[in-house]
This record gives sequence, structure tokens and C-alpha cells, in this order.
Amino acid sequence: MPRYTAPVDEVLFLLNDVFQIARYDNLPGFADASSDVTAAILGEAAKFCEEVLQPLNQTGDSEGCTRHPDGRVTTPPGFKEAYRRLIEGGWLGLSAPTAYGGQGLPATLTAVVNEFLCSANMAFSMYPGLVQGAVAALLLHGDEQQKATYLPKMISGEWAGTMNLTEPHCGTDLGLLRTKAVKQADGSYRLSGTKIFISGGEQDLTENIVHLVLARIEGAPEGTKGISLFVVPKILVDADGSLGERNGVSCGSIEHKMGIHGNSTCVMNYDNAVGWLVGEENRGLAAMFTMMNEARLGVGIQGLALSEVAYQNAVAYAKERLQGRALSGAKFADKPADPIIVHPDVRRTLMSIRAFNEAARALVLWTALKGDVAHRSEDEAERQAADDHMGLLTPVIKGVLTDRGFANTVAAQQMFGGHGYIAETGMEQFVRDARISMIYEGANGIQALDLVGRKLPRDGGRAVMAFFNEVQTYIAERTDDAVMKAYVAPLATALGHLQQATMWFMQNAIGKPDNAGAGSHDYMHLFGLVALGYMWCRIVEAARGKQAAQGNDGDAQLDAKLVTARFFMERMLPETAVQLARIKAGADAVMSLPAEAF
Amino acid sequence: MPRYTAPVDEVLFLLNDVFQIARYDNLPGFADASSDVTAAILGEAAKFCEEVLQPLNQTGDSEGCTRHPDGRVTTPPGFKEAYRRLIEGGWLGLSAPTAYGGQGLPATLTAVVNEFLCSANMAFSMYPGLVQGAVAALLLHGDEQQKATYLPKMISGEWAGTMNLTEPHCGTDLGLLRTKAVKQADGSYRLSGTKIFISGGEQDLTENIVHLVLARIEGAPEGTKGISLFVVPKILVDADGSLGERNGVSCGSIEHKMGIHGNSTCVMNYDNAVGWLVGEENRGLAAMFTMMNEARLGVGIQGLALSEVAYQNAVAYAKERLQGRALSGAKFADKPADPIIVHPDVRRTLMSIRAFNEAARALVLWTALKGDVAHRSEDEAERQAADDHMGLLTPVIKGVLTDRGFANTVAAQQMFGGHGYIAETGMEQFVRDARISMIYEGANGIQALDLVGRKLPRDGGRAVMAFFNEVQTYIAERTDDAVMKAYVAPLATALGHLQQATMWFMQNAIGKPDNAGAGSHDYMHLFGLVALGYMWCRIVEAARGKQAAQGNDGDAQLDAKLVTARFFMERMLPETAVQLARIKAGADAVMSLPAEAF
Repeated sequence: MPRYTAPVDEVLFLLNDVFQIARYDNLPGFADASSDVTAAILGEAAKFCEEVLQPLNQTGDSEGCTRHPDGRVTTPPGFKEAYRRLIEGGWLGLSAPTAYGGQGLPATLTAVVNEFLCSANMAFSMYPGLVQGAVAALLLHGDEQQKATYLPKMISGEWAGTMNLTEPHCGTDLGLLRTKAVKQADGSYRLSGTKIFISGGEQDLTENIVHLVLARIEGAPEGTKGISLFVVPKILVDADGSLGERNGVSCGSIEHKMGIHGNSTCVMNYDNAVGWLVGEENRGLAAMFTMMNEARLGVGIQGLALSEVAYQNAVAYAKERLQGRALSGAKFADKPADPIIVHPDVRRTLMSIRAFNEAARALVLWTALKGDVAHRSEDEAERQAADDHMGLLTPVIKGVLTDRGFANTVAAQQMFGGHGYIAETGMEQFVRDARISMIYEGANGIQALDLVGRKLPRDGGRAVMAFFNEVQTYIAERTDDAVMKAYVAPLATALGHLQQATMWFMQNAIGKPDNAGAGSHDYMHLFGLVALGYMWCRIVEAARGKQAAQGNDGDAQLDAKLVTARFFMERMLPETAVQLARIKAGADAVMSLPAEAF
Repeated sequence: MPRYTAPVDEVLFLLNDVFQIARYDNLPGFADASSDVTAAILGEAAKFCEEVLQPLNQTGDSEGCTRHPDGRVTTPPGFKEAYRRLIEGGWLGLSAPTAYGGQGLPATLTAVVNEFLCSANMAFSMYPGLVQGAVAALLLHGDEQQKATYLPKMISGEWAGTMNLTEPHCGTDLGLLRTKAVKQADGSYRLSGTKIFISGGEQDLTENIVHLVLARIEGAPEGTKGISLFVVPKILVDADGSLGERNGVSCGSIEHKMGIHGNSTCVMNYDNAVGWLVGEENRGLAAMFTMMNEARLGVGIQGLALSEVAYQNAVAYAKERLQGRALSGAKFADKPADPIIVHPDVRRTLMSIRAFNEAARALVLWTALKGDVAHRSEDEAERQAADDHMGLLTPVIKGVLTDRGFANTVAAQQMFGGHGYIAETGMEQFVRDARISMIYEGANGIQALDLVGRKLPRDGGRAVMAFFNEVQTYIAERTDDAVMKAYVAPLATALGHLQQATMWFMQNAIGKPDNAGAGSHDYMHLFGLVALGYMWCRIVEAARGKQAAQGNDGDAQLDAKLVTARFFMERMLPETAVQLARIKAGADAVMSLPAEAF
């Protein structure tokens, strides 16, 4: 049976010591989240995740969701009751505006809670996750009536939400989509078409589901410029807010998939369904994109979350499983064998995952804080800088954290030998569940292209220059620090590789965009390593500061930070050299085979 | 629905042009395998795999195996009939000795056929695969009566075979095993104990199953020096060769696993089962190890096989799926979108898999040929050199081909976007099936340790020196070749890294073995890249030779070899520099955290 303990202390260290969240107290909602309050909230979230959600994770996988002949979908046993408790705990409204019944606390806290929820039970966590996405879209683009109608019920958790983008023939290329919307005399629309891969499209957890749907209004331009966003409730809402008639939307089937079996992935049929335009006509894609940063940050968090829970289980097994003897001589001569954590290759694996997890969590929180600044600051320059950061780092976090997060679940599974391949230990479920995070909300190849093709050149490179400047300044100010230079020197080398790669694109990809495409994957991962390396430097500095303040009395967890950072610098960061070499190799060998030769 | 076409032409190019198999005609059985005969055999194997086995692959996964209350196990629908056709085709005896009813053809051909079988249906292919392993063990260590009793029926395919090593508390560390054997007055033994993870331990394909079982004879020394090997038939064989009574061995349960659902993974209970000693008392582990090379080569082939079939399906999808436009401008303006194969990141993915597959197949065939030399040559020096090669390359092939093969199935699945996560396309099955190859027959961490700790130092480094010498000589002889130098120069760099890493171990790991353990994973992969790079040079040279002989008339497949080799040299081989850096970082950061800090 797998286990999970939410890393509350680790989060508090990051929030209080590394990022000093108290400095943000001028932002709305932040003063309410004092250190004590935050600790209490996270403690409650941890308890809910560990005691309620985690025990439902394996059964949710083995039981899955069921679609009944009448189109109803039931979620796995226990999910309904757990969802009720989620609602009661107010977890859906933690960071939502108080005007609609939310608690208005920093969205950064929601990012933390989302990690815990996902580690405990990814399939379950996607139900509230999608609600958050739909709430964000309505907040940004809905009119006052739409907000008043839907938001309070969604923020309380009574109603769920979904995002309907994909159709059988179009995923990444939404310009191809065919779902039709026909305008009615009363200003509403009638939608017809088929959407696929709709997470939580139908379920038995909530009394209503608010579908956000991309469709093409009759007569709209072809391609991406003719797409509009609509709100289509499963059950129509009467003027007094009570539930009325069933709308013309139903679940045609649910998919048999590799993992996240506890989440219903639906084919949704829209058959003359009543919907209302959200935002402007033909501006639906833009509306989607403004909420994409948060959604993609959420998926990056899933990569981290599964890496974390897989790591915890691998550590526990490595300490318990007796097999073989340490290369340097038996460590537990009284036992029939040593625990496998004595073996360097087991250590190497665990250290690799740990060195990723801790820095990835820092990167998520750093970026989530920027998100709060971007949405809540009264200073426009501050908002813009934070928004630049979000835009730049979002594809990096989504792509790198899910690629590496998945790889880490595989590595953690490997620690179990044959037992890891058996469903009972739960390790193979982490692998299957984590796999989707590399695919949805824009497959990782698209993230890389978004980074290189859109985010780098945007506003004359303002965002990337600001990032380089911050890291470079940080390094320069610490080069003379006897301890810190061991960490900032390798970071400087890696940053140099990233800057060279950026320069190479500027010189070689404008005239030949295939050079950007061929290097985009490596560039995204190179960027990720530099960002994680920077996080490690900041973690080390905060740990040293705390050690100094505590009188350096050998706090094992703080000592461990320095060792883990060294491991990262010695064994993970050096990959940037190869990534740069691959980028500079350009597109020739990649593109020169004719398609028929494949 | 996934598809598969066995790469017959590719294999014939490797056998005839790259390795010039005709040069081996002095070995027994090789002259019978003329180029025409080989082509005909592989054509038949391809047909069987494509038409009979591949169509059963998805249903085998979804239906799985069933254990009935009486202990019987039924395999998925269609498997029994397919097995009958496998037997009728004589595929189990292709390379087996003619003395026991085999065809005596090169084992290299069996390696090829095993790749095809596994690409078509991995779960099915494991049933005959395990028979091959058991046949090899009996051929090497059985006495004349055992051989006469079991081999003809196993080689014809009428009886199956299994290997019983693992117990609940011991996998890698077999010294801990507890299954007991008690000697009887008639020279037989009675075995009692529980074995787990026994592939094909019970099934409905054959009338008898010949279990090879590791157990400890009463009073034997503790640890690995007290383990003996036994043959334990499911149904006892009477003196006249007919089937007699049921033996005391039964299937207690079958495992629920991540993949290979069509193969029954059994818990086997031995309850006073009658068995006979194979080889000498207390020399069971040595007996297992002498057949390990072939079994591990077979698992390496599985990594290649799933990489190949996943690649073929990803290519087909990339040519069909219309989504987006080429970065350099629309390629098919008449269609609603371009096929995704125009995108550089899709190409990069496909080229990476292809560049692995072709060189990995070469590495397998090169090593399989060495295996034939080691077993069939009359020249002792030749046999020893070939055996050295086998011993050295086996952990590399097992570890590297399965690590990369699995990663390639993940990359191929990624090409499908969300559709790759759905069972229907079959891509997620390849991922789940491939995953086990990294674990069984010695988890890949053990392969790395075997390479570094055992194979490198053996006989004063004779095997590794011979390998270095061969590659170095090959490079030196081509440095002045205007075309070849583009390929041998990067290989020389990579070989230099491998030699430096080897030297570093000699200088740093003898006194501190953790330095070897901490670098073993990277060393194995560094070795693999050098071996694959060497294969690419030989492929390029053979392709050029064939182009010259054909008058260089632009054979697209031969041209593609040169491009793919360039891709490998530019984008995959450079990783050796980072691997060397990690190895030289040593064990300090890996090992210095106390176990409690995890």
C-alpha cells in the first residue's frame, strides 16, 4: 500500500525563508495569510489529503468510472463523499474572490494545496482542478450576470466546471474545430458538435456542471480567428438561480485510458445545447490563452506532485527492503542483508528525484507568487514584470516539470524491482497517472515551441532579458562568497549556455525557423535546468541563513539542502552543455530525410 | 489499431552487408543458412508475426490471463491456437541442436525472430522465450537422461519451460532464498517453497511445463554457495516418456501487473514436489549464470522490439495526422493542415528513435554472431574472444537497450497527443509492456554493477581492452577517409570519454568501491553510446559500399542511413561528455546524506 505525507515543513521553509512571503503583505489577502495561519491551513490540507484522498487512490484506479446506458457517469466508490468533504472544507474557494464567496487568500496557497491533492489522488484532484480553471475563465471574461449566476456555486464547490476544446480531428490546431453555435433571437446560442477528452465532463459529484466550450458561430471566419467561447450549463439555471431543465449536452462515452482512471474522460455531445457567449465573438482563443498560464502551472504541479509521492514511497522501500550488502562492507551485519539504500545506484536515483522535487517546488512557488503579484499588485510596473515572468516560465514549468516528473516516477518504480511492476505497490499507477501531464494542456513539444517561438521574442525579449538579468546579478553578488561560489559558479556556466543558445536562435532561426523548432525541446530543458539551479542557490542561501540564526546546531534537514544542491550542481546541471551542442547542431540532420524515407 | 511490419530488409542488410555473415560459413549450421534461405525464413517469420500474433496483441492485453479456482490458468483468446501454429512452424527449434530435433541454424536467426515475435506480441513471445532459456540450461547442465527426457519435447514446443528464481523476500540477492530440497533414497529430491514472478508458470498452451527451480538442499551452506538447480516437471514423465502423475507444484495466484497481461505471471507453490538435480550440488547459481548472457540478450532485444513497433506506429500517425502548418510555410496548402511530420520537434523525436533502433539492431546481431562463434567455433582463441565479447556487451545491451527502448515507447506515444493516452491506439500498451524489460533478468542497476564490478576487471580487463582495441583500430584506419572521418571523429571523442572513465575507475574505485557504484549507471550508458556509435560507422561504411556497387543510384534507404548516422553523431553521441563528468564527480554527494535524512 502506497503512503503519502504532505511536505508541509518544506513548503513553509520555501514560503517563509526562501521567498519571505511576509514581504508581500501589501498585496490583498496576503496579510490574512500570516505564517501561523498558513501553517494551520496547510496542516488541515495535509490531513485531508493524507487521511481522506490518499486511501481512495488505488481503489479509484482499479474501480474507475462507469458510464450507464442513460448517460450518467458514476465516479469510483468514496469519491462522492470525499468531494462533499472537500466542499465543506471550503478548499475550492481558498484563493477565490471574497465577492463571490471565496476566502481571497493568496493563489500561491492554492498552488500548494493542489500539489498535496494531486500527490494524494491525482484523478480526484482533477475534478476541483477543472473547476478552478473554469472559474478563472469566467472571472476574466464573463459578464456580470454570468459571474453572478455561476461563480458563487462553483466557488462553493456545489457546481463543477469543465473546459471543452478538443475535437476528434483537432487538438493542438484549434483552428480546425467544427462545433457550431447558432445565435438565437434572445441573444443566446445553440451549440452542436462533439468534444473529446473532456475531464469530468459527466460525474455524480455535483448537482450541476458548467461547461466552457469553444465553438464557431455561424458565418465566422475560418481558422483560429473564428472561434468563440461559450458557457453551457448541464442543467439550465432559472432566473432565480434554481436549477431548471436539462440542457442538450450529454456524455456519449468515456475513454479507456492508461491512467487517471478515477477521473471521467468524456466524449461530450452537444445537440442544440443552449449556451451564452463569454467575452467577445471570435475572441474565444484569446480568452482561453489568458487563463492558460494558470492551467499550465497546475499541470506542472502535477508533474512535481507525482514525483514527490513516488519519491516518498521509493525512500520507504529503500529503507525497508533487505537485499545484498554495501559495496564498502556490511552495514547491518546482524540482519540477513543490508537495506538497499546503502547501494550507490539506489542513492543516485533517490538523490536525483529529491534534487528535482525540492527545486521544482521552489520554482512553482516563486512563479505562483509572481502570479499573485500580477493579479493583485497596485503597481503597474510590478504587475507587468510579474506577468512577463509568468508568461516566460509557464511553458518551462509545464514542460520540464512533467517530463522530469514522469521520468522520476519511472525511476522510483525501478527501486522496487519486480514488485514495482505489480499493481499492489501502487508505483506503476504513479507512472501511468503522471504520463498524461506531458500530454494535456498543450503537449510538451508545444510548450517548447511556445517558449522559443512566442515567449522569447515577445516585447523585444523583455521577459527573457529580465530573467537573465536577475540570475546574472544574483551570481555576481555572490562570486566572492567562499561557500556560495561552489553553487553559483556552475550556475554561471549553465546560464552562459542558455544565453549562447538564445543568441544562436537570434542569429540562426529568424531566417530558418526549423532551427528553432529542432532546438526547442533542448532549449526548454536547458532553461529548466538553469531555473532549477537558481532555485537551488536560493535554497542553499536560505538554509545557511537559518543555520546561522539557529546557531548552526546541525539541523539535519538544512544540512541535507547543501548536499542535495551539490548533487544537483555536479550531476544534473552539467547536462546544459549537451543541450547547447544539440541546439547548435541545427535542423539539417533533423529535417533532411524526405517523409517517404520514414 | 496498431500495426507492425517486420523489418526483414533491414535485418538482411545487417547480416549480408554490414556483418557479411557468409564469412562464418565454416561454423556448423551457417552454411545451411544461405542468404536465400535466411530471407525465406525471415519472410515466413514476418508473416506469422504480422498476421497471427500482432492481431492478438491488444486483445491479449485487455483480456489477460485467468486463474481458475482449481489452479488452472487460461491464456487470452487466440493464444492457444497461435501457439499451435508456432509449434507447427518449428520456430522453437530453429537454432536448437539437430540431435534433439532442432534445425541447428545459427542462434543469430533466433535472435532476429525473437525481435519480430516481441514487436508483434510481447506477452505471447515470452512463452517460447522462456522455453529457450530452459532448453539452454538443460543443454549446458543437464545429464544425458534429463536431456533425452525433456529436450525433444521442449524443442518441438510440445512442452514449455520456466525459470524459478525469485521468492517474496529475495530477488537480486538470491543468497537469501529458502525453497528447500530434501534428497530421497532414489536420488530424486522433494522441493517445498514459494516462488514468485514466474512467467508462464501455469498456462493452457502446452501439455506439460518443465520448471527449472533454484533451491537449497537440506544442510547446504548459507548464502549463494548453497543453492542448487533442479528440474521439476509439472506432470511427471514415465520411463517410456509418456506423461504420468501430476507433480506437487501449482499456481497459487497470478499477479495484476502494469503490462504484459497476456503472459501469466504466477506465484508457484512447491509442495513436496519431485525434482532432480541439474548439474552439481550447490552450484546452481553458477549454472544459472552460464545461461544468463543469452537470457539478458533476449531482454535487450525486447527493448529494441518495442521501440521498433512503437516507432512504426508513430511514423504512420505522423504522416496521417493533420495539425498545424510547417514553420517554413504550408507544405500541403490544399489540405486543412499539414501532416505533423513536417514539424521539427516531431522529426527530432522520430529520428532519435530511428537512430537508436537501427544501431541497436546491429549491436544485437553483432553480439548474437559472437554468441554463435563462442558456442560453435573449433578455434579456442576465437571462442574465448567471442565469449569475452558476449560477457562484456551483455549487460550493456540489456541495460541500455531496455532503458532507451522504454524511453522510445514513451516518445512515440507522445506523438499521438491525447490519443496516445487512450488504449485504442495501442501506444500506451507498448509503454506498459516495455517497462518490465528494465526490471527483470536483473534490474538495470544490477546490469550496470555487473559491467563495472565484474566484467571490466575480469581476466585483467582482457575483454574491455579487446573492445577498445577493435574500435580504436577501426577509427585509426578511417581517419583519412574524407567521408568516414565525419563519423569516426565523434566516435573517437566518445571512445576517449569511455577510456577516461575506465581509467578513472581504476584509479578511484579500487580503494573506494562506492565510486564505481555511483558511476555505474552512467558508465553503462556511456559504453552503450560508444557501441551504438561504432555500429553506425559500420552501417555507414556498408551503405556506402552498397551504393558504390549499385552505381550510387540514389537508393533512398541507403541515403537515409547516412543522414540518420549524422543525426546520431550530432545529437545523441555528445551525451558521453556529461556521463564522464558525472562519473568523475564520484560518490561523495551521492552517499553523504545519512539514511535518516531521506
